[in-house]
Amino acid sequence: MLNNHEKVKIILEALPYIQKFSGKIIVIKYGGSVMEDEELSKEVFRDIVLLKFVGMMPIVVHGGGKEITHLMKKLGIPSKFVSGHRITDKETLDIVEMILAGKINKRVVAGINAQGGLAIGLSGKDANLIKAEKLVLNESLDLGYVGDIKSINIKLLESLLYEGYIPVISSIGIDEKGQGYNINADIVAGKVAQMLKAEKLIYLTDTEGVMDRDKGIISHLSINEAKRLIDEGDIVGGMLPKVTSGVDALQGGVKKVHIINGTFAHSILLEIFTEEGIGTEIVKS
Amino acid sequence: MLNNHEKVKIILEALPYIQKFSGKIIVIKYGGSVMEDEELSKEVFRDIVLLKFVGMMPIVVHGGGKEITHLMKKLGIPSKFVSGHRITDKETLDIVEMILAGKINKRVVAGINAQGGLAIGLSGKDANLIKAEKLVLNESLDLGYVGDIKSINIKLLESLLYEGYIPVISSIGIDEKGQGYNINADIVAGKVAQMLKAEKLIYLTDTEGVMDRDKGIISHLSINEAKRLIDEGDIVGGMLPKVTSGVDALQGGVKKVHIINGTFAHSILLEIFTEEGIGTEIVKS
Amino acid sequence: MLNNHEKVKIILEALPYIQKFSGKIIVIKYGGSVMEDEELSKEVFRDIVLLKFVGMMPIVVHGGGKEITHLMKKLGIPSKFVSGHRITDKETLDIVEMILAGKINKRVVAGINAQGGLAIGLSGKDANLIKAEKLVLNESLDLGYVGDIKSINIKLLESLLYEGYIPVISSIGIDEKGQGYNINADIVAGKVAQMLKAEKLIYLTDTEGVMDRDKGIISHLSINEAKRLIDEGDIVGGMLPKVTSGVDALQGGVKKVHIINGTFAHSILLEIFTEEGIGTEIVKS
Amino acid sequence: MLNNHEKVKIILEALPYIQKFSGKIIVIKYGGSVMEDEELSKEVFRDIVLLKFVGMMPIVVHGGGKEITHLMKKLGIPSKFVSGHRITDKETLDIVEMILAGKINKRVVAGINAQGGLAIGLSGKDANLIKAEKLVLNESLDLGYVGDIKSINIKLLESLLYEGYIPVISSIGIDEKGQGYNINADIVAGKVAQMLKAEKLIYLTDTEGVMDRDKGIISHLSINEAKRLIDEGDIVGGMLPKVTSGVDALQGGVKKVHIINGTFAHSILLEIFTEEGIGTEIVKS
Amino acid sequence: MLNNHEKVKIILEALPYIQKFSGKIIVIKYGGSVMEDEELSKEVFRDIVLLKFVGMMPIVVHGGGKEITHLMKKLGIPSKFVSGHRITDKETLDIVEMILAGKINKRVVAGINAQGGLAIGLSGKDANLIKAEKLVLNESLDLGYVGDIKSINIKLLESLLYEGYIPVISSIGIDEKGQGYNINADIVAGKVAQMLKAEKLIYLTDTEGVMDRDKGIISHLSINEAKRLIDEGDIVGGMLPKVTSGVDALQGGVKKVHIINGTFAHSILLEIFTEEGIGTEIVKS
Amino acid sequence: MLNNHEKVKIILEALPYIQKFSGKIIVIKYGGSVMEDEELSKEVFRDIVLLKFVGMMPIVVHGGGKEITHLMKKLGIPSKFVSGHRITDKETLDIVEMILAGKINKRVVAGINAQGGLAIGLSGKDANLIKAEKLVLNESLDLGYVGDIKSINIKLLESLLYEGYIPVISSIGIDEKGQGYNINADIVAGKVAQMLKAEKLIYLTDTEGVMDRDKGIISHLSINEAKRLIDEGDIVGGMLPKVTSGVDALQGGVKKVHIINGTFAHSILLEIFTEEGIGTEIVKS
Repeated sequence: MLNNHEKVKIILEALPYIQKFSGKIIVIKYGGSVMEDEELSKEVFRDIVLLKFVGMMPIVVHGGGKEITHLMKKLGIPSKFVSGHRITDKETLDIVEMILAGKINKRVVAGINAQGGLAIGLSGKDANLIKAEKLVLNESLDLGYVGDIKSINIKLLESLLYEGYIPVISSIGIDEKGQGYNINADIVAGKVAQMLKAEKLIYLTDTEGVMDRDKGIISHLSINEAKRLIDEGDIVGGMLPKVTSGVDALQGGVKKVHIINGTFAHSILLEIFTEEGIGTEIVKS
Repeated sequence: MLNNHEKVKIILEALPYIQKFSGKIIVIKYGGSVMEDEELSKEVFRDIVLLKFVGMMPIVVHGGGKEITHLMKKLGIPSKFVSGHRITDKETLDIVEMILAGKINKRVVAGINAQGGLAIGLSGKDANLIKAEKLVLNESLDLGYVGDIKSINIKLLESLLYEGYIPVISSIGIDEKGQGYNINADIVAGKVAQMLKAEKLIYLTDTEGVMDRDKGIISHLSINEAKRLIDEGDIVGGMLPKVTSGVDALQGGVKKVHIINGTFAHSILLEIFTEEGIGTEIVKS
Repeated sequence: MLNNHEKVKIILEALPYIQKFSGKIIVIKYGGSVMEDEELSKEVFRDIVLLKFVGMMPIVVHGGGKEITHLMKKLGIPSKFVSGHRITDKETLDIVEMILAGKINKRVVAGINAQGGLAIGLSGKDANLIKAEKLVLNESLDLGYVGDIKSINIKLLESLLYEGYIPVISSIGIDEKGQGYNINADIVAGKVAQMLKAEKLIYLTDTEGVMDRDKGIISHLSINEAKRLIDEGDIVGGMLPKVTSGVDALQGGVKKVHIINGTFAHSILLEIFTEEGIGTEIVKS
Repeated sequence: MLNNHEKVKIILEALPYIQKFSGKIIVIKYGGSVMEDEELSKEVFRDIVLLKFVGMMPIVVHGGGKEITHLMKKLGIPSKFVSGHRITDKETLDIVEMILAGKINKRVVAGINAQGGLAIGLSGKDANLIKAEKLVLNESLDLGYVGDIKSINIKLLESLLYEGYIPVISSIGIDEKGQGYNINADIVAGKVAQMLKAEKLIYLTDTEGVMDRDKGIISHLSINEAKRLIDEGDIVGGMLPKVTSGVDALQGGVKKVHIINGTFAHSILLEIFTEEGIGTEIVKS
Repeated sequence: MLNNHEKVKIILEALPYIQKFSGKIIVIKYGGSVMEDEELSKEVFRDIVLLKFVGMMPIVVHGGGKEITHLMKKLGIPSKFVSGHRITDKETLDIVEMILAGKINKRVVAGINAQGGLAIGLSGKDANLIKAEKLVLNESLDLGYVGDIKSINIKLLESLLYEGYIPVISSIGIDEKGQGYNINADIVAGKVAQMLKAEKLIYLTDTEGVMDRDKGIISHLSINEAKRLIDEGDIVGGMLPKVTSGVDALQGGVKKVHIINGTFAHSILLEIFTEEGIGTEIVKS
Repeated sequence: MLNNHEKVKIILEALPYIQKFSGKIIVIKYGGSVMEDEELSKEVFRDIVLLKFVGMMPIVVHGGGKEITHLMKKLGIPSKFVSGHRITDKETLDIVEMILAGKINKRVVAGINAQGGLAIGLSGKDANLIKAEKLVLNESLDLGYVGDIKSINIKLLESLLYEGYIPVISSIGIDEKGQGYNINADIVAGKVAQMLKAEKLIYLTDTEGVMDRDKGIISHLSINEAKRLIDEGDIVGGMLPKVTSGVDALQGGVKKVHIINGTFAHSILLEIFTEEGIGTEIVKS
């Protein structure tokens, strides 16, 4: 047990990091198992509120695949996936939106507010935050209402950040006719970070980071190395959209991308407040 | 058929009403059968966007009882009501939030945006918009997570209105621990109008307005007359929270309350742009 | 006779036009016979106030040739014109200013205010709004105090528009010594529109628009066609400064120029609120 | 002849007065013979521009009785006066407005601008600056369009002052129907000073100030003394509205009222930049 | 040694305190032995910069008695004190100002800046920050240029705080003739805290806090208890102006006053970031 | 003796100069014998306050060589100079700062405030106003803490000017570790003027200006002529940093540089308010 004096000295050790990231935008993709663990989520929300109160500007983007699948099963609707995309018909889209914008988004908002922050939940429909169009992978395959991002309404996000709110974004898109789209949350997080030229884009995942072929964590990746790994097929599954979006974000002006283990309490703080960091970081060069 | 010249003369007839309500806040409770009619809803959204573009500041509050009951039935959960309140356990509250904040709210937002407006959907959880506590009607009855409004974050609403957005509010409340509550949307609409000292509070219903004992529409009510009707038991069912909240709103500074037939296209515009108006209006004296 | 329901549907038809021109600057040259018709002028003022209240930013520029000539005759001073310019000696300039800035300008301002707008009358002398120098057509001809525009104080106009006023401008110029100049109002309107990059520049005239050789109205002109008509001498008299200034304005950033019949009630609204429009429109290409 | 060193020492003597009146509003009623003297007027304009540039906020109010009478005579219309008020029919009102708002106002504006200031001329019609109603002295006498001030739009004046302009006001009023009124300029100056809580209200006249019965100048008057002089009939003619309006202005918050000889060059500066001052000053007590 | 994970958990423990004092003004009187210890001072500056970066608004007030005496001795001038006040003639005042505003103030400013803050040093002369007059204890005693505070220019402090600077104030006063005064820094700190309605006023001293007669630390005092201790003569010497000014500050709106041991590293942080706190706290009741 | 009327005419003669320099930044290097003359300094402060009140934005930069040498002698420390630079060890730097920031700076601030201005004293340490590094003339010579300017925090100066303060700057620099540096005040004045693109940079000296070889004053110098004089060794001693910094300032955007005799009362005003000016002016070409 530390005495108070030892404790404040440790708090002081955080000062250089607080100064370095003061006023900077940190986009956090919240997803994976951490979402299912109420206690762990509470810790994540507390981490986010801490970032806010020491002067950073966190933005949360979330997905919610498992809960969508769960409700669909309850309602007797089968979930179908093609190359990682959920085939999304009208009925499915309704369920996606209800789970994302109605359940998870508000759970995150309430969780952050309970820690003393002031979060505002946004679906991509709100103020046309995420303008999208139908994603067409190839002519012969119809994914239904799966969307491809066309633009982000950064004016709204900047004004909410400026007024002190923590935006919490559901990965839903909208087209000019008001049609909704289901979008991969990793891609939304990357695009939001890129458009706001965020300091950091942090993906909370269920693994320790990007693995090499021997299942060792790669702690540092340049854009070129990341691209090579993608080309050589070493990055697959749910890691693929994270790395791809991360690379795009870096090329668009984001300083650093982190893929870290969200199932480990305070991994966000470890990444931001220590020199070593954790997981995999991707940087420009 | 009118020629163009006759048409612009009719547009000009709207000028006195546009001038009268320029810059004024109009709170619209959107609910009832109109919500189930896609075409009719589209007209309502168009009416709201018109109000915005001719200089008024519309705010939409919505409920969604029928769709909640529908999804509960699908999921095999029975709906129980006591004195008009839905008994709301944890599972029910999840469904309420999914339908309200996830489905209906985003449908309204997308509908308004498709007409050229810029709506932002808000649950009472967002930025603690609707602070609430557990509603206790009497000691022996536990309604579950049914909420009583403690305060409204008008700073958020004012700043969104000022930046040109149309707020769309789901009737969900939150307490300081982040716990959600299911609240009657009529009451939310009344409280929002009251706290913002709105010019008008309009309830869209399935009937022509408040009826007298002979089923004739009462076109005009003073606060005192409304109170007397309530006391004498002439106002019952879904009309009761509307009239009660309307009276509270008037006493809190709202200019006029209207209870009109939302199943009739453009009833909002008829109320605002014509001398006669429609339905029942309640005024201070 | 239409019922109220039919009327609000017609008002709704204006929505796309209101949205399209929201926040846009519309410069209106008010002149010709319409100025002499009190009832017709009242309708024009009402049209202008409607534009303002539905979100546009109208600016009025006016001339006043006939009333100047009328007062000169009363005072026993002959009016002399050379190539459309009034020979303006000191005494004439006094009369020009009295009629324009003292009589017509204030009549327009009062007329707009009576319709519920808030107009501010400006001569080009006010805050050096229209900086001018002596117009020299050729060495051997002295037009007196007829001016050529050097610059427009757009800062003043923008700040008045921003605060919600409707500027009403008399076509008087000023040089750095405070000397006044009589300037063609069509040219002033064109220059004001150009400097503010107005959406529309509308000339209210006594004819249906630009005519072809067979006295048919030309409903659409490109800049090149307009220039050709001028070169071939098909545009003459009072139409010449309108078309010339209109072409300059378009080349300077104005979207569309309209030459319409002001003697027909609500011609402004017809131009703005209907697809067909009226009169002649000139566009970039 | 002074050398430069002696000159800058004299400039420095003005510093205490510049500091004292920095940021203060000075309302100057410009009228009488000074208006007819071009050279003298130029000096007045220079004085006003100096006040502006050393940090004060001058506002000019002007009348123009003699030039109105002059033009009326030229047009063959007789001038009729009752108790100092010009009987003002429709035709006379037109002439009043043309002379005031069209000729004199713009002459003052141009004169100030030529000295390097930036003046904006305003009639009471502009932005409803001077709201008025028909003045009724007694039932049996109809003065025509002679007005009584109901209110002043101080928001407009404050915003123009704040942006660095010198407002120049013609004594014309307007009612809610847009009807114009001829108002005594002394009364307008007093009311403007009063509503803006001006530091000083200066009347430029053709005499040395208020005279006692022996034709000696009274250099200092309290409100009570001024009222007594009025009651005893010692203040008459054109001096009456000045003293009466001055007393009203003082009671409404103006610090000091000065009645000085405007036919003497730089009398404004003498009043402001010297300890002795000139003419008559009226103070609260 | 703690691992990173344990460290971030300790940082998180600071969150409730960061939230509680976010945006609050903390006035710190820096003085006593801590000033002479370069390493300790560095820690104090780091503490202050931490407070700033986690959202609080620290203001530093400093004295410098020992260094003044030291320089006076070097220059061969004897230091004389009467009831704790340094007799301050013209020569002494020069030395006081040189040490306070020239040496210590700039040392503090540079020290804070070196830690990454942005401090601005202010003497009470700057922008007339501390208006003072000659302090007269009794008629027969002339303390020389020892001052009594008349007012604080809080507009300047608020604007510097708002722009993100850390004000560092030397305890010098000024009268309207520009004459400087030597003022007790404890009193300056109290008055600054009071006028800004600071959240906390912290006195860094060389002792553990206010002692009772048995030399035990009194950890908590109400205003009434503090007054009683003063009246009974239990608070003497350098502790007297601290407790007296602290009581005044509390009565003027400051939330809490702390008298803590500045010779112990991070005592400021211990006071702010732990529940127990250290030293003596004085509160309203 | 002039009468009041003659006096105000002389004040009016200043108008063109007041207009010309309204809103412009004037940097004044205050130094030399004038600093030792209390009465003369008072006149300089009055001049500066006059400039401020008639709309200019004066900034004062001061040195203080003689008083530093004087205190060092009193403390028994010898002053050593190499090529015009004072060898500055730790002890010397303390004395430099005490004299500059503690004594002279506050004397100037108090002097300006006593004349009705509102000055704020700044050392280069405040808000890192003057970032500096060690000046290295050549490898073999160590000047100690003599600094070379790296950058000026113009944001701070602009915000103070905007809020109406008169900045008074001591020629002290700071590096990122908080180490102070002694910098030549002429160079500081030149750099401040350059970074703010001042209208004028005025050096108050003990001579009439730059002299030619026959000891005649050179009243006008182009940059090229000034460079030639430097190259040919005709500008030496204390005049060298003034002319060199002046040339740099002109090349960086300053309009005019003046080297004038500060021992002559009101030389600043003579330079600004008369056509002839005094001393030497250096201009771009």
